[in-house]
Amino acid sequence: MTEQEMSLILEKLGRQARRASAALAVLPADAKKICLEKMADALIAAKSEIISANAKDLEAAHRSGMDAAKIDRLTLNDARINSMADGLRQVAAQNDPVGKVLSTVTRPNGLQISKVSVPFGVIGIIFESRPNVTADAAGICIKAGNAVILRGGSEAFESNMAIAGVLNRTAAQCGLPEGVVQLIPWTDRMAVKLMLKMDRYIDLVIPRGGEGLIRTVVAEATMPVLKHYKGVCHLYAASGCNFADAVNIIVNAKCSRPAVCNALETLLIDRSIAAEFVPQVSRALLAKGVELRGDAEFCKLCNEAKKAEESDYYAEYLSLILAVKIVDGVEEAVEHINTFGSRHSDGILSGIQEDTDYFTANVDSSTVYVNASTRFTDGGEFGMGAEIGISTDKLHARGPMGADELTTYKYIVRGSGQIR
Amino acid sequence: MTEQEMSLILEKLGRQARRASAALAVLPADAKKICLEKMADALIAAKSEIISANAKDLEAAHRSGMDAAKIDRLTLNDARINSMADGLRQVAAQNDPVGKVLSTVTRPNGLQISKVSVPFGVIGIIFESRPNVTADAAGICIKAGNAVILRGGSEAFESNMAIAGVLNRTAAQCGLPEGVVQLIPWTDRMAVKLMLKMDRYIDLVIPRGGEGLIRTVVAEATMPVLKHYKGVCHLYAASGCNFADAVNIIVNAKCSRPAVCNALETLLIDRSIAAEFVPQVSRALLAKGVELRGDAEFCKLCNEAKKAEESDYYAEYLSLILAVKIVDGVEEAVEHINTFGSRHSDGILSGIQEDTDYFTANVDSSTVYVNASTRFTDGGEFGMGAEIGISTDKLHARGPMGADELTTYKYIVRGSGQIR
Repeated sequence: MTEQEMSLILEKLGRQARRASAALAVLPADAKKICLEKMADALIAAKSEIISANAKDLEAAHRSGMDAAKIDRLTLNDARINSMADGLRQVAAQNDPVGKVLSTVTRPNGLQISKVSVPFGVIGIIFESRPNVTADAAGICIKAGNAVILRGGSEAFESNMAIAGVLNRTAAQCGLPEGVVQLIPWTDRMAVKLMLKMDRYIDLVIPRGGEGLIRTVVAEATMPVLKHYKGVCHLYAASGCNFADAVNIIVNAKCSRPAVCNALETLLIDRSIAAEFVPQVSRALLAKGVELRGDAEFCKLCNEAKKAEESDYYAEYLSLILAVKIVDGVEEAVEHINTFGSRHSDGILSGIQEDTDYFTANVDSSTVYVNASTRFTDGGEFGMGAEIGISTDKLHARGPMGADELTTYKYIVRGSGQIR
Repeated sequence: MTEQEMSLILEKLGRQARRASAALAVLPADAKKICLEKMADALIAAKSEIISANAKDLEAAHRSGMDAAKIDRLTLNDARINSMADGLRQVAAQNDPVGKVLSTVTRPNGLQISKVSVPFGVIGIIFESRPNVTADAAGICIKAGNAVILRGGSEAFESNMAIAGVLNRTAAQCGLPEGVVQLIPWTDRMAVKLMLKMDRYIDLVIPRGGEGLIRTVVAEATMPVLKHYKGVCHLYAASGCNFADAVNIIVNAKCSRPAVCNALETLLIDRSIAAEFVPQVSRALLAKGVELRGDAEFCKLCNEAKKAEESDYYAEYLSLILAVKIVDGVEEAVEHINTFGSRHSDGILSGIQEDTDYFTANVDSSTVYVNASTRFTDGGEFGMGAEIGISTDKLHARGPMGADELTTYKYIVRGSGQIR
């Protein structure tokens, strides 16, 4: 297919999405809820169809020698399809994020100015291997009244097409125009490049995947992008912290799921507690198989540690490696985090309110913790019900993003003949 | 000066701004208020200094043959400096937009999650001729706890430098580090290009000026930009509207200040009222010297009208020209506005709630009016006290933007040892 032919088809998808978004934007909350519940039922009903599409992807994956962890992420089975359906039902049950009156004011001249939440319009989602993202992302976009154009990884192409097909058929049964959920029907890179220039039709793009994918999207996209590049998360064990709690939190933040973006990557330890605290925390981390890379001072207190380079303090290891640094008080800790961090999730472990106040006020990150694990930065854990991604941007949305974050607002001004 | 030398100096401005923003972010509301009031006093005290700097700009402007309207915009005098100072005092008196708890939730595990408004950090403002923008923009940025880097038009360079100098001296007297208000100290285009690549130091850029300036900023900037390209504002005179009110509103929206972005550019008239309404509204508009460009149907009802081309319906005239079209009901009106408009300000004139509801729900613009003039899209008129610009973007802020819109948020999560 030539670039021009592909362009024409994408243009058609874009126009359909725009039309569908206009219908979705004014769809009553109840109708959206029912439609999402029907989509959940339809996924269950189409289990064998989805699993046999997935079998094709798995066959190709095995042929290409894909590693076991990736194959696991790609695999759909009875339980995982149930879980996709449950996800849609949970999103359906949430409060409707559209049409909320965010503020209202009556001006001295009698004008009544209301600020009301409205959908964005059309959202583009670009993601890698997991096919469940097709249903999760579509559900949350629809809840917020948006049409969605999805582009999934090539290794899950058949699975994604099957899931999107089911969702689209259900949307049609609900009386919605074609274009509510659309999947880019090609796996080559040209299609993504073209999609990212469609700012006439796509209001916002959310990439989900590794830093490489996200950098490509940001470089190519002509529409706004909500994203995080990486999560270089810190915990600072401050003077006066409860050692048992601190060790517990640090081990959880580093070890419970080291490959995710809210996992701990750098531990800062206050000099005043180092001599006593380092042996305790090191023992616990080493017992979990964590490789420690520390500054000279830390290495003196922990024989098993390797010497850290400066690059270690910028690193998102996504594995059982932890950078450690001894710092002199909360100011140096904050300075380190704002310099080396990624503005994702950073916490202080301390019982001294003066220090925790300084920390929360001065750390410039999307989520700042006091005495808890960084692993809680997650839409579900925040009570959003579902999550479309996490933002380390400052514009529009920061931290975990749910359906609320997929709305914008407009002002509705009601008058009775006012002129200026 | 070479590009590299300029880069080094800009880099220094950036670092200073970043440092100043950290100090401003934690400055208590009272201290910001007092600092802004002192800035107002300092402008008054420095009147002769500012007026003599302005005289140099005016001399150069006269030499270059600048037209009278532009020279008027460039001129500073006693009254205008008083008005800048008043603006700062008004911003000082507003509620502090920083540190607001936007939402708070306690999760079943005991985590307390608060969403709190915080400053962006460093804001870049790029503007054209009016030197008062230096004080207005700096005031609103500081109110929201941000440092600001300004780049004004070359024709107002001396005036801008004098004003920024006064503000900076005052910031120093208030104990703030250097870098709260900085003006790019060159007038050549290279400096803007370099500034727009400083995403390490500038979190957000707001351009204020003509469409050409804004397109350049969007094309060059590597940081987010909040802006509107143009205001192609519509009013739709619907079936059942009050004719006297409608004529009054239309004349006001078109004629009260035709050169501003919230002025009316296209009038839509419902077919059902056209025969009766067109003579009345045409008479009033023609009496004000408005040139009418209508479709064939309108031209039949109004002999003085010229025939409109399709391009007239995309046009932002910014002068006493009005495009007119006869439409068949509210659905066609909405369709026209969403196709030809600029998502700025659009209104319906009608007494029928079914139509006004359809209109407000379906018009995809930042501000949607019922029975009032589009001229009210303005921070002051919205009760924001001051305005840094108007956004037709959907991300982050739509419509008039005040100090609230110059904040973002972060999540502060307080726990007692929670792990996941």
